[in-house]
Amino acid sequence: MSIETTIAEMAAAARQASRQMARCPTDRKNAVLLAISAALGRHAAHIQNENRKDLSQARANGLSAAMIDRLTIGDDTLAAMQAGLREVAALDDPVGSRSAAWMRPNGLEVARLRIPLGVIGMIYESRPNVTVDAAALCLKSGNAVILRGGSEALASNRALAAIIGDTLEKNGLAPTAVQVVPFTDRAAVTALLAQEENIDLIIPRGGEGLIRFVVQHSKIPVLKHYKGVCHVYVDCGADLEMAAEICFNAKVQRPGVCNAMETLLVHQDEAAAFLTAVGPRLMAAGVELRGCARTLALLPDATPAGEEDWPAEYLDLILAVKVVDDMDAALAHIAAFGSGHTEAIVTSNYERARRFLREADASVVLVNASTRFNDGGQLGLGAEIGISTSKLHAFGPMGLTELTTTKFVVLGNGQVRTS
Amino acid sequence: MSIETTIAEMAAAARQASRQMARCPTDRKNAVLLAISAALGRHAAHIQNENRKDLSQARANGLSAAMIDRLTIGDDTLAAMQAGLREVAALDDPVGSRSAAWMRPNGLEVARLRIPLGVIGMIYESRPNVTVDAAALCLKSGNAVILRGGSEALASNRALAAIIGDTLEKNGLAPTAVQVVPFTDRAAVTALLAQEENIDLIIPRGGEGLIRFVVQHSKIPVLKHYKGVCHVYVDCGADLEMAAEICFNAKVQRPGVCNAMETLLVHQDEAAAFLTAVGPRLMAAGVELRGCARTLALLPDATPAGEEDWPAEYLDLILAVKVVDDMDAALAHIAAFGSGHTEAIVTSNYERARRFLREADASVVLVNASTRFNDGGQLGLGAEIGISTSKLHAFGPMGLTELTTTKFVVLGNGQVRTS
Repeated sequence: MSIETTIAEMAAAARQASRQMARCPTDRKNAVLLAISAALGRHAAHIQNENRKDLSQARANGLSAAMIDRLTIGDDTLAAMQAGLREVAALDDPVGSRSAAWMRPNGLEVARLRIPLGVIGMIYESRPNVTVDAAALCLKSGNAVILRGGSEALASNRALAAIIGDTLEKNGLAPTAVQVVPFTDRAAVTALLAQEENIDLIIPRGGEGLIRFVVQHSKIPVLKHYKGVCHVYVDCGADLEMAAEICFNAKVQRPGVCNAMETLLVHQDEAAAFLTAVGPRLMAAGVELRGCARTLALLPDATPAGEEDWPAEYLDLILAVKVVDDMDAALAHIAAFGSGHTEAIVTSNYERARRFLREADASVVLVNASTRFNDGGQLGLGAEIGISTSKLHAFGPMGLTELTTTKFVVLGNGQVRTS
Repeated sequence: MSIETTIAEMAAAARQASRQMARCPTDRKNAVLLAISAALGRHAAHIQNENRKDLSQARANGLSAAMIDRLTIGDDTLAAMQAGLREVAALDDPVGSRSAAWMRPNGLEVARLRIPLGVIGMIYESRPNVTVDAAALCLKSGNAVILRGGSEALASNRALAAIIGDTLEKNGLAPTAVQVVPFTDRAAVTALLAQEENIDLIIPRGGEGLIRFVVQHSKIPVLKHYKGVCHVYVDCGADLEMAAEICFNAKVQRPGVCNAMETLLVHQDEAAAFLTAVGPRLMAAGVELRGCARTLALLPDATPAGEEDWPAEYLDLILAVKVVDDMDAALAHIAAFGSGHTEAIVTSNYERARRFLREADASVVLVNASTRFNDGGQLGLGAEIGISTSKLHAFGPMGLTELTTTKFVVLGNGQVRTS
């Protein structure tokens, strides 16, 4: 059977399973999640055995130590997967909630009922824990899911999916509610992206290249973010000690993630005091500073920034620094180079705080807090399946609610339309 | 200048204008809408003069009388456009509303702030009143819009857009907040669909061919419905008089629209009584019935239905009729042939009403009311810019709120992340 036929059959089976999942009551979904958590523990040896096949292949292919580390399912990784399942089981179920109904003049009662999206397609790279996390969030929100992880994790992902499917079946649910694509070919991704009748949403997670490929080839709506070029703007009159803590945290605490700060903007009146204080502290932590001319005048050890630095997502201990005339200039810089991900201001001024919240065009905008808080867990959504920087459907971290939609339900007693 | 360059410049100008529109307070947006309404009245002669150019071209091209009727801007059409602008001005502005903020354990205050989407691209056929309606809804929701109407309406649409742009400018807003694509070539549509950096949403309105073309070529998210294959299921024990009124209304009141009934499903126990009563009434109104074998046994004047009738969207005085064993069979038929648009049940049974609401997979599901109520105005959204049958972002009629999204706004006092 061809890849295309197999993928089409998987998508049709997922659609069938999704109808059953949509009707599944919350307590049953929670019981299944807890049963999967327990099953992962019982089958730990098998999972780690399959994982070792991926690891030896990865070593043979010369993957980097960092990649191999991400690929490894150690005891701690497995325990984290199990804990994740229990956490998702404990979250509120968004499905079935109904907005306050309103009455139309003709007596029709109208409400919006929250329902699952249907079938989710996840396309991601390497880490096998995403397989379990994504399955948990999709099941809890009443969806079916088709998972296409990195080719280097195929044996691990198939082992995990087999255990999940088996547990679903033992609990009277369709095992096809969670399926792993069994092909490593790119053609399998293209085939998946063409199943618009049976897949409702594609969520890609990975590098910009993967995401651009998905967006370009998908006939299905895609929720994605390309990159996080996040700014912190230190305003005139800001508490400079607070600003230093926030900037240090936003850059240094975990530089390789999308909500880390990539460019620091400083009001010209604070530049001397602030940059001479925070600059050496950042450099002492290993941060390479790439500054504009005014920054270099204050921090001679910084590297001159080029035009390529302003739109850069370093994901590393590198920081672009620019001194700006005022908040207009800061907002203009963010409008030009921001990626719609996360923007923060440190300020003591009420009006400028309000204006920044309104005008900075990003999924999360913060006053006096680190950019690192753009995260579903940190913002109180419970768990996240990804972050969206496009505005349709979801903008920012996506939790369970973002895996659902609403339909209109209308109760009448014989109403017909006359005009 | 090439079509591609012009379209790219229009999209960039729309992005600029959208930033200003996003900040525009409600009272100023309302004042502009009322000013546009007044300006359309003052320039009626010019608009109708330009419209006559389109009409004589349409006649020369041999367009049907129905098409020419839809293209004509008579005094009544113009008055309706003006009234529409006043109605949109009177609607609540969704922009700026904030969900109840919640406090995180670390003291961060998180809320979701409703914001405009940015730039909307509308691609539609022929009727010039869509130009004014869409401009009104996009402006009121703080967006900029690029309009690409039917080529046969180009002179009319350009005249309308010029008046809108002029009024925007006189009120201190960018005239590029509303732009009409000045090309009739298909290449202009393709170019528009490639502006993913500067257009946030595409809304196509028209025949299935246009919509499939848009979905296939767009790099931008698309909200659309392909077709409305809407069912009414008459349940066992239903009030048959009510069912007859609802079915007659759903089929006959306006057969050419997407929320008209296309297939009638009748429980076998009611088929004899119901079909022999409603069948002749529908046929007397000019409806051609295409029935399954059990229908034909009761209504010998009906035509036999073929397999092609169950997925058909007739948009005409034709109705497919099927007798089903029970509600399971009705729901299975709807799952197989429904288009996710509108589904209705006529029933007296509490449990089956609840089940139908949950399980019929459509943007609007009704109990004891006509399918014709799937309409933004009828459901109380105020006005609609289209109906979505895909589940992402909006499912069902789209009003002002569906032209917006939310971003997270976070207020802190120095919080940094430790894990």
